[in-house]
Amino acid sequence: MSEIRKDPASPTWVVLAAERGKRPSEFPKRTAIEPSGRCPLCEELNLRGLGAGEGEEEPVYVLDNKYPAVKTTLELAQGVESDFYHYLSGFGGHEVVVETPAHKTSLASMSPSQIAAVLGVYRERFRHWRRDPRIAYILVFRNYRAAAGASVSHPHSQIISVPMIPHRVAEELHEARVFFDQNNCCVYCQTIEIEEEAAKRVVIAGKSIFAHTPYASRFPYEMRIMPRRHSGDFEGISDAEIEELALTLSDLTQRLKRLLDDPAFNLLVHVAPVRTLGLVYYHWHLELIPRLTMPAGFEWASGVYINPQSPEEAADQLRQA
Amino acid sequence: MSEIRKDPASPTWVVLAAERGKRPSEFPKRTAIEPSGRCPLCEELNLRGLGAGEGEEEPVYVLDNKYPAVKTTLELAQGVESDFYHYLSGFGGHEVVVETPAHKTSLASMSPSQIAAVLGVYRERFRHWRRDPRIAYILVFRNYRAAAGASVSHPHSQIISVPMIPHRVAEELHEARVFFDQNNCCVYCQTIEIEEEAAKRVVIAGKSIFAHTPYASRFPYEMRIMPRRHSGDFEGISDAEIEELALTLSDLTQRLKRLLDDPAFNLLVHVAPVRTLGLVYYHWHLELIPRLTMPAGFEWASGVYINPQSPEEAADQLRQA
Repeated sequence: MSEIRKDPASPTWVVLAAERGKRPSEFPKRTAIEPSGRCPLCEELNLRGLGAGEGEEEPVYVLDNKYPAVKTTLELAQGVESDFYHYLSGFGGHEVVVETPAHKTSLASMSPSQIAAVLGVYRERFRHWRRDPRIAYILVFRNYRAAAGASVSHPHSQIISVPMIPHRVAEELHEARVFFDQNNCCVYCQTIEIEEEAAKRVVIAGKSIFAHTPYASRFPYEMRIMPRRHSGDFEGISDAEIEELALTLSDLTQRLKRLLDDPAFNLLVHVAPVRTLGLVYYHWHLELIPRLTMPAGFEWASGVYINPQSPEEAADQLRQA
Repeated sequence: MSEIRKDPASPTWVVLAAERGKRPSEFPKRTAIEPSGRCPLCEELNLRGLGAGEGEEEPVYVLDNKYPAVKTTLELAQGVESDFYHYLSGFGGHEVVVETPAHKTSLASMSPSQIAAVLGVYRERFRHWRRDPRIAYILVFRNYRAAAGASVSHPHSQIISVPMIPHRVAEELHEARVFFDQNNCCVYCQTIEIEEEAAKRVVIAGKSIFAHTPYASRFPYEMRIMPRRHSGDFEGISDAEIEELALTLSDLTQRLKRLLDDPAFNLLVHVAPVRTLGLVYYHWHLELIPRLTMPAGFEWASGVYINPQSPEEAADQLRQA
């Protein structure tokens, strides 16, 4: 069974993917990564005869997720359990981006050119999934280490393409639009300008890429990474921007590694929905969130986050690291 | 420093409580509970000469949190860092409810009458905090075990009273109001009726308290517990309802314990905001969420949850446990 259900009492959408329960590490309890000592991604590459490249660059591979949350083999359909409960079929794409055949590496130890190759694959997948008219949103994310939800330690990202606009994105779009209506400018463009002037939350102010700790950081050392050039969609990113973004990610993850003993983190790509190319009020960005504190009852109940560290302190430490 | 900051690019509010970083277990890495083998809550009770009661009932104590996220000693004030960034001072209440002097117990092993005494204290604290005109919302929650965010294993709940309406609550209020406008009935009252008829997600259908797994459950074995009598605020709960709610919580946590080897969980109380007593469209409820799976990149990026278990399966297992 795979259904995308809506809660009638809140804006919550849930992907019920009962088959994911079969993932070795997922359920009922998350256990050690690769308890058998065998990496499923290395095995998969071997099986397909894929491996290291000949030149300096390692190839990047895109595989279907073996335990998909959503599936392209399903028809996209709306359904009802009653007048009260609605769902979508669990239609969508769920891919794994194997960032390199080299098992023992990470963003912090990968070469910037290898990271650029991965970012290039993201761009290509955004362009690929856009062609499917049933897809409303494309989510790219990376979980590093078990504490961030990774079930495999081999360097990989995931791409989930879904037939609806996720709630968190809808919220950001709404807020950005209200801001644009009131101020006639993009809230993210404005953020870059104001942060650059205030200087105290800047981590890396590059030529085309800007990284800072947000004013309302939810988590210690949370970072937002944005292109200076206004653009809502990642697929329009230039090769030069990709190169600088790769350098930035390499630099930031190395700083985290030095400062916090190589912490678990989530890396999230936020873009505008598929059908709204060229939005004036939304600006793509990455969130880089180390997993040091744990959301608990207060956070779950309220949607408000308690952060035991100021973003000014975080930026200061990250700049010095 | 304690500030409640608003993100200009999303509806996110963050409580920056830099002093909480000093909590032994909070930061930079969450470590084992009570590493010293000494319980801070037992020590606190001893210090104050508080202890076990004389009759069958153990007393329930309300203490100020030693590492408060918000403080009543601050003035409630709005502030700006610039035209762009706004905050509230970190005004509010942060209390710890010590549920019993007995260190080694839990909701599953506590007597229902002891749980009823704790619920009675919740009711009293709701009534207490309402008297402060600066308080907009009162949040009661319980973290059980480190995996649910507990930093102390002594049975306790927390009450955080804040000067704004938290985002998750605002969302529920909005959705409930839209439903009421369209259907002229409370979405929670309707849920009880429909779930009772469908029968497949009911866990306990009591005389005045109803517990079920939500249609769009975000997490395995997630439960929602509601009074049958429509009411938006917990403080109007009757003694008889408290008694039955205590029995229900005892029963449900025992089922979880048998089924899942005493898992970590969060227990969250959702009520209407302080200034809206008697809302026709909102209905107080508890969320009981075992912490078995971990939200990862997808959940953080999207606000959409992937649940590897259907709520029908969960309810079935919980009924049989």
